[in-house]
Amino acid sequence: MNAKVIVMPKAAVLDPQGNAVRDAMRHLGMPEVRSVRIGKYMEIEIEGKDGELESRLHQLCRDLLSNPVIEDYELLEDESGYNQTKTQRKSL
Amino acid sequence: MNAKVIVMPKAAVLDPQGNAVRDAMRHLGMPEVRSVRIGKYMEIEIEGKDGELESRLHQLCRDLLSNPVIEDYELLEDESGYNQTKTQRKSL
Repeated sequence: MNAKVIVMPKAAVLDPQGNAVRDAMRHLGMPEVRSVRIGKYMEIEIEGKDGELESRLHQLCRDLLSNPVIEDYELLEDESGYNQTKTQRKSL
Repeated sequence: MNAKVIVMPKAAVLDPQGNAVRDAMRHLGMPEVRSVRIGKYMEIEIEGKDGELESRLHQLCRDLLSNPVIEDYELLEDESGYNQTKTQRKSL
């Protein structure tokens, strides 16, 4: 099973890295940019697949891969490795 | 227009951050993890939408948002902001 985890700063949290990239894009010929937010993208390869594994994966997303105080995570599962994603956004 | 940019280390490039997360996941109750690779995820809000803007965005992906020597980027466009993504993976 392949899982993808997207970790983004919560909407209410300042993102200075995103603001720096937004300003750089505006100066490099793209004044139309309204906002940029930057997060992490993780591709995880796991042996096997069952429902219990999925709940352990959600647990690890909360405990290790994201900081639930300032970040949201999204877990996308990709069983065949191609085009079968299941989105579950968790905002804690 | 909303664009999403995923920047990942190339397959041939070592990813020590990913390896550290893989080892941590194995120690935290998920020994099935085979590999983890970590990249960046950027959500970009842009005013307007045209083909010329798209090519400028690809240019900025290469010049500013990624390092083409060690990273690949993927540009996903999301015109309505919901479920209409167009994937273009560029490996330079």
